[in-house]
Amino acid sequence: MTGATDEFLINNQAYAIRFDSGHLPTPPRKRVAIVTCMDSRMDIFAILGLSNGEAHIIRNAGGVVTDDVIRSLAISQRKLNTREILVINHTECGMLTFTDDEFRESLRLETGMKPPWSPESFSDLDAEVRNSLNRIRNSAFIQHKQARGFVYDVDTGRLREVF
Amino acid sequence: MTGATDEFLINNQAYAIRFDSGHLPTPPRKRVAIVTCMDSRMDIFAILGLSNGEAHIIRNAGGVVTDDVIRSLAISQRKLNTREILVINHTECGMLTFTDDEFRESLRLETGMKPPWSPESFSDLDAEVRNSLNRIRNSAFIQHKQARGFVYDVDTGRLREVF
Repeated sequence: MTGATDEFLINNQAYAIRFDSGHLPTPPRKRVAIVTCMDSRMDIFAILGLSNGEAHIIRNAGGVVTDDVIRSLAISQRKLNTREILVINHTECGMLTFTDDEFRESLRLETGMKPPWSPESFSDLDAEVRNSLNRIRNSAFIQHKQARGFVYDVDTGRLREVF
Repeated sequence: MTGATDEFLINNQAYAIRFDSGHLPTPPRKRVAIVTCMDSRMDIFAILGLSNGEAHIIRNAGGVVTDDVIRSLAISQRKLNTREILVINHTECGMLTFTDDEFRESLRLETGMKPPWSPESFSDLDAEVRNSLNRIRNSAFIQHKQARGFVYDVDTGRLREVF
């Protein structure tokens, strides 16, 4: 069962035929890194009007600044010269629907082991954006702290800044 | 200096005006999760012909299956019902240009501390795709192991499967 994957491969053949970006350098032209959720309703290029080669896009469950995001941002800034960071959470996030304790216990019951990581669920979107911004500000490995946070509304397509 | 961020916010206003996806459910319709690199030259929606609401997109430096990606995939499968996984690395990746030892040592010299994480650099794209697929296959927390791996060519827009 890889029905969807095969469909995406056919779509990619059509994309490659009309592909005309030419050669672009590896460092992002706008010097921006965006941290956001894996949610399927967020076409980040379209939402922000990005073109090929402009910004790094880092995504995980929740758009949470975890250690792996710190790793990605450190590489983005030090090896590929980005200077601004955007953190974008969104309405109707799946991470609002369970607790860390509940998820870890369900994994323990099913696999016989608790995972060694926190699931990083949350209950308040604005507080979660601030949590991520504070993790950026407090990381020794992120040199350039210029970061702004937003909540994206999946029903209107609109970004709202969190202060 | 948040020049690029302000520009993206203006782009978003135009996006929201023409936004017409209507209400979409949180679980991805195609039941797919895609793991790929943060690289700025990969517009994943366009490359795979995705529409809003079809697939989770997980991205970090290198498109490496780290513990944070295992976390995201576990949530994707268990809370939001995805069943297939795609891993996509790409040509000219920044992760091919340094070694873990060198990057950790440069952070130590600059901050006085080595990071507690591996930078996860690599030197062979196909081997790195297989490394990620094997981490998926060996994780107790990922139930559905149907995963395929690819290398994306940033100069042609084309995906090549890694076997």
